[in-house]
Amino acid sequence: MSEKKILLSEREIPTHWYNVMADMPNLPQPPLNPATGKPAGPEDLAAIFPMELIKQEVSTERWIEIPEPVRELYKIWRPAPLYRALQLEKELDTPAHIYYKYEGVSPAGSHKLNTAIPQAYYNKEAGIKRLTTETGAGQWGSSISLACRFFGLECMVYMVKVSYNQKPYRRILMNTFGAQVVASPSNLTEAGRAVLAADPDSNGSLGIAISEAVEDAAKRSDTNYSLGSVLNHVCLHQTVIGQEAKLQLEKVGEYPDVVFASCGGGSNFAGLAFPFLRDKLTENRKVRLVAVEPSACPTLTRGTFAYDFGDVAKMTPLLMMYTLGHEFMPPGIHAGGLRYHGDSPLVSQLYHDGLIEAVAYDQTRVFEAAVQFARTEGIVPAPESAHAVRAAIDEALRAKEAGEKKVILIGLSGHGHFDMSAYETYLSGALQDTPYSEEALRESLSRLPQV
Amino acid sequence: MSEKKILLSEREIPTHWYNVMADMPNLPQPPLNPATGKPAGPEDLAAIFPMELIKQEVSTERWIEIPEPVRELYKIWRPAPLYRALQLEKELDTPAHIYYKYEGVSPAGSHKLNTAIPQAYYNKEAGIKRLTTETGAGQWGSSISLACRFFGLECMVYMVKVSYNQKPYRRILMNTFGAQVVASPSNLTEAGRAVLAADPDSNGSLGIAISEAVEDAAKRSDTNYSLGSVLNHVCLHQTVIGQEAKLQLEKVGEYPDVVFASCGGGSNFAGLAFPFLRDKLTENRKVRLVAVEPSACPTLTRGTFAYDFGDVAKMTPLLMMYTLGHEFMPPGIHAGGLRYHGDSPLVSQLYHDGLIEAVAYDQTRVFEAAVQFARTEGIVPAPESAHAVRAAIDEALRAKEAGEKKVILIGLSGHGHFDMSAYETYLSGALQDTPYSEEALRESLSRLPQV
Repeated sequence: MSEKKILLSEREIPTHWYNVMADMPNLPQPPLNPATGKPAGPEDLAAIFPMELIKQEVSTERWIEIPEPVRELYKIWRPAPLYRALQLEKELDTPAHIYYKYEGVSPAGSHKLNTAIPQAYYNKEAGIKRLTTETGAGQWGSSISLACRFFGLECMVYMVKVSYNQKPYRRILMNTFGAQVVASPSNLTEAGRAVLAADPDSNGSLGIAISEAVEDAAKRSDTNYSLGSVLNHVCLHQTVIGQEAKLQLEKVGEYPDVVFASCGGGSNFAGLAFPFLRDKLTENRKVRLVAVEPSACPTLTRGTFAYDFGDVAKMTPLLMMYTLGHEFMPPGIHAGGLRYHGDSPLVSQLYHDGLIEAVAYDQTRVFEAAVQFARTEGIVPAPESAHAVRAAIDEALRAKEAGEKKVILIGLSGHGHFDMSAYETYLSGALQDTPYSEEALRESLSRLPQV
Repeated sequence: MSEKKILLSEREIPTHWYNVMADMPNLPQPPLNPATGKPAGPEDLAAIFPMELIKQEVSTERWIEIPEPVRELYKIWRPAPLYRALQLEKELDTPAHIYYKYEGVSPAGSHKLNTAIPQAYYNKEAGIKRLTTETGAGQWGSSISLACRFFGLECMVYMVKVSYNQKPYRRILMNTFGAQVVASPSNLTEAGRAVLAADPDSNGSLGIAISEAVEDAAKRSDTNYSLGSVLNHVCLHQTVIGQEAKLQLEKVGEYPDVVFASCGGGSNFAGLAFPFLRDKLTENRKVRLVAVEPSACPTLTRGTFAYDFGDVAKMTPLLMMYTLGHEFMPPGIHAGGLRYHGDSPLVSQLYHDGLIEAVAYDQTRVFEAAVQFARTEGIVPAPESAHAVRAAIDEALRAKEAGEKKVILIGLSGHGHFDMSAYETYLSGALQDTPYSEEALRESLSRLPQV
């Protein structure tokens, strides 16, 4: 019998997060204060973030220690299992070895809890009583709701309206963990009211929801804002994923030829890929790192590398990143977590420097792969995670064609238990690909801020 | 740091199932052929079960070897983790040590896959092409759907209508695994049509759905029937749970004073409790084994120990068991998996002999415990599993009152990701306790078959 799961003990939970800024050849450009156009300092962020997270945002230390209370809570589900996809390999009849690092064992259902817990912890330590945030598909919202509960913080979630309606069970999960959830755009903030005035039927977007959550946090001194992706400290916290996966593969004597992870704001991809990227940068190790995104929101593959706002209401600092423009409104695809107009400045810089790759897929092909995965491996992937599964299956089929034994690693970031209506749409034959409008993209890109 | 999870390696998956019939003081009475009133022989079962399962049904061998292909598939999620409920203990401020054996890591979401896989395997080996079954809450249906897929069998699920409507995502999950699902009572069988003729608005029940699935299987030679609980071979397969839990507790130097598991048809309780019961029977070890059931369907605590049909249409052999009467229609509580009128003959005999205990809870108190568990341990329990959580919390509070260090073991049989509408009902304050009608129970018990 070959091993199906490669498990680690709780003693093997990483003690430090890995900071890629210590090793990348070109550091990302600094965020800019949108009013002055000057690099944003800690004081620009202190209204909505605790100082420890601001320090992490700019640190170039290679290893940052994980606080003991955070590691203690990580033990609820970490180390996460690494699986060998034995049944999928058999079905594909491929010589490739396919592994997946499964973050869906987190009680909130995805990798997002890796950063939710330290964010709640540092805010609690700073005396904060309440966090606000946005959520798309709800994976992030569920995680921060639970993390807030663990530390006795109140939690207010602005949930993108299209997901709020498509995924009622996600909202109830957040309520079960004790959070308050509203559909965004809401009438609770100026940003929300402005969008609703222009378009009462707005589907919402992550960009709008961020504006609402930031505005709410900026207004109250007991409240901070919490972001589930994009920023450096978020990518940092996720590196527990890749560190564990490396150790797990090492235990079975393997190293990946190629790593696939879905990429929305970038933290899931970063978390799995950065510890392998370190080997590439410091030991010249050969490993391909591929970010997989939806064709309907192709930030890396079709966006522009430029300074842009993180939100629609232009409240955030300007970030240097691949972007489709902060006004870009992606079609309402089921992978709500990948509907963000921008991408992590770290991931963007690395992509710009040719150190990582990107590929985009239509959602019908993604769901085809998701169902094949569910029927062989048993796990129903989140639509976001299924993007990486699609890319990995295609790679395994190419390996079969070429007769090559490849080692493929998938970042399976979460389960799809709250996405079953999307599966029903696919299984009933009603799922369609929803291309974005090229004209709208051109227009959105023409309105990037001038810096 | 104390350990949160006690994990085993794949080599520690049990090699044999434990058969309690080798050790119990009084064997259960044999099933009877309903036409003749004589003990049912293998030929009475051969129309719908493969011979290997029939042999297991009557075997008194203590240990029955688990086939290699079954163990291979068990590796997808087994050994299941044993957790120390550290955060819950802290919240309760109890000296008790609370552990839970978590079967929700199964890709189908519950312990049911432990028996679904061997059942599909033995049927495949016997040349069967298609399995029929019933499902209540959908945990069993999801498991048999996936197991059939693993072995290339077709799968037809009759799902109790109240659950079919309350839990659309469960149905979609079964479809995702490739099964066909219909609401029961359906118009596909004589049994279903008879119920619909009498009551077009029937909510359905497990008893009716079993009639439909058995009728379907009996009509086709390529089709067998598969039952998710009650029978001896099902209880047998579930004993991997208790065997693992014992070994896990041993690794941390603990032994339970009391074990709580929810009890519908009985296999979840049996699976966790029987390996501990063995210690009690053969080594006179002190351990309380408590079956937890809903007040709305109180089979052990309010039923009669008598021969009764397993289904409404009186197609099954008569089983000697605690029963509320095969015509008893329990209220539509959210723990659909616990809405069965009877109980496992093994569990029933042991209860009758005073070797195990039983307790019943109202669903509002059960959901109160479920939310407390979710907010501390992070895991959202299935409503069925939450019955055991409720009982364990009460035990832990009694231990606090008495200042006793008790070791409490919970069978957390599954997650509640497909039960979020039930949580919403509870959180909104709309959840009610729905007592059964005492008069209907009296009437149902007066119609037990005369043998």
